[in-house]
Amino acid sequence: MKFGAIEAGGTKFVCAVGNEDGDVFEKIVIPTENPEVTMPKVYEFFKDTGIERMGIGSFGPIDLNEGTGSYGTIQKTPKTAWINFPLADEVSRYTGVPVVADTDVNVAALSESLWGNATGVNSCLYITVGTGIGAGAIVNGATLKGLSHPEMGHIAVRRHAEDTFAGTCPYHSDCLEGMAAGPAIEQRWGKPGNDLADNELVWEIEAYYLAQAIVNYIYILSPERVIMGGGVMQQAHLFDLIRKNVVDMLNGYVSSPLLTPDRVDNYIVPPGLTNEAGIKGALILAAK
Amino acid sequence: MKFGAIEAGGTKFVCAVGNEDGDVFEKIVIPTENPEVTMPKVYEFFKDTGIERMGIGSFGPIDLNEGTGSYGTIQKTPKTAWINFPLADEVSRYTGVPVVADTDVNVAALSESLWGNATGVNSCLYITVGTGIGAGAIVNGATLKGLSHPEMGHIAVRRHAEDTFAGTCPYHSDCLEGMAAGPAIEQRWGKPGNDLADNELVWEIEAYYLAQAIVNYIYILSPERVIMGGGVMQQAHLFDLIRKNVVDMLNGYVSSPLLTPDRVDNYIVPPGLTNEAGIKGALILAAK
Ligand SMILES: Nc1ncnc2c1ncn2[C@@H]1O[C@H](COP(=O)(O)OP(=O)(O)O)[C@@H](O)[C@H]1O
Ligand SMILES: Nc1ncnc2c1ncn2[C@@H]1O[C@H](COP(=O)(O)OP(=O)(O)O)[C@@H](O)[C@H]1O
Ligand SMILES: [Zn+2]
Ligand SMILES: [Zn+2]
Repeated sequence: MKFGAIEAGGTKFVCAVGNEDGDVFEKIVIPTENPEVTMPKVYEFFKDTGIERMGIGSFGPIDLNEGTGSYGTIQKTPKTAWINFPLADEVSRYTGVPVVADTDVNVAALSESLWGNATGVNSCLYITVGTGIGAGAIVNGATLKGLSHPEMGHIAVRRHAEDTFAGTCPYHSDCLEGMAAGPAIEQRWGKPGNDLADNELVWEIEAYYLAQAIVNYIYILSPERVIMGGGVMQQAHLFDLIRKNVVDMLNGYVSSPLLTPDRVDNYIVPPGLTNEAGIKGALILAAK
Repeated sequence: MKFGAIEAGGTKFVCAVGNEDGDVFEKIVIPTENPEVTMPKVYEFFKDTGIERMGIGSFGPIDLNEGTGSYGTIQKTPKTAWINFPLADEVSRYTGVPVVADTDVNVAALSESLWGNATGVNSCLYITVGTGIGAGAIVNGATLKGLSHPEMGHIAVRRHAEDTFAGTCPYHSDCLEGMAAGPAIEQRWGKPGNDLADNELVWEIEAYYLAQAIVNYIYILSPERVIMGGGVMQQAHLFDLIRKNVVDMLNGYVSSPLLTPDRVDNYIVPPGLTNEAGIKGALILAAK
């Protein structure tokens, strides 16, 4: 069977035709402009491809609630042209196939759990630290959703003692995303993370916030593995700083051999998949 | 089929024989002393009852990991006589039936989802605010576990502006449990919550911490319903204070009709089951 997959991102839409094993037969990349510009190119790509169903991993917030009548509709987002765009419904209407939607990060967690760095465990968390901070998770065999989808980037964090930065989040100012996403680093220090690789305090503060968040995720979700990706995590030295902080902050409270200095590098890891994580995950959504 | 159920608590063990519908045929309450005193009475009760399998909802921390060789073993706890006691293995050995173990709060979430105040939704969170603070959850059709079980009471919270109390948690001092469980109220104000019903600041501070935690749980887990029980929640006026704080703190970020002043009292609710929630949930564990 052939399935369709869309990775709907803030800068590009990746569309593909593939199968339930994640094999991609055809692929196209379309820049994200207004829906009226972008979407017709999406529909054109899928025309006559013979797909049976479509999976979409989308930027959010997006309504994933099947009872609301607006399943798969983009909600309020800084990308204002997309607010209230009924992504799943429109894709279904123009391609003629059923659509399953989930968040980009849930879809990434799904493909990491099948083919990436979270194989062999029953649950995992996928965190991206980029323009924003978001996370998806696999719990009890499926992606984590409920009342809405998680918004893990917006939890409250305690301020680092040397940090007076106000925070960038329009909703909460100094939530995790407001203090630790790429734009927060850039505004706090006056240049992007990319150009701050040698400034130790930058990464000490960054690791402090990210580790705090991971500790909360562990207390609340208890994932068997934590995967961290996104632009900011290109600073590979961050991994060890985060790991050390997580073990210190947990203070031995959660008994697991993985939450020890020796083993934590098998617990907090980079993604195993690079380019096609989103698309492969969206294919699995469609195939399920 | 007949099943066995044990609700293993810090003050009492409740043991029952019942069926998969939660009907209880026989029940006994045994005080929690040392394992050598308590457990033989438990085994005696189940003798010749003809049960096929046993479910245990236990105080924690308890190892719920099937791969460690110590599944169902109590971990470090203030009840030191129980540290490293292999509860599931011993119960299985003396009763001769397979044992399924989970936390007391996960088991409560399970029975609330089947017969209590979380029927008709796909996910729920069950929070208890008593001697400690703990929470269990149902996600994707099963209780929430992973690397270990959740320890939601130990997340970090931001201090209330008027609160200088150091906190009672031996691991983290001023985590949620350290600031908001029953003993924290008692130490902060010099008398138990019971005797503070008329002191508004007590409950303003209490609601501030509990609401902060619920907001984090919503961002991370997105439960479709939140149930709050335990001794401290006997202060029924706390519900409305918590609800108001949750809506205010979310600041409209999560779009759900339930997270509005009008509807939040259908979202954050007291338990629907009282006495037999633990035992009924343990029966379901056994019957699954
Ligand atoms: N090598 C790097 N070191 C530090 N920060 C980086 C690096 N590369 C990108 N970033 C930051 O990551 C953010 C972009 O994140 P990215 O994950 O690439 O995109 P998006 O989140 O938009 O999908 C920007 O704020 C950028 O400054
Ligand atoms: N009516 C009440 N108002 C405020 N606090 C109470 C009330 N009843 C009990 N508590 C507090 O709740 C805690 C006991 O919680 P409870 O849930 O009854 O037991 P446990 O957590 O040990 O199972 C104590 O700290 C007690 O002071
Ligand atoms: Zn925020
Ligand atoms: Zn604590």
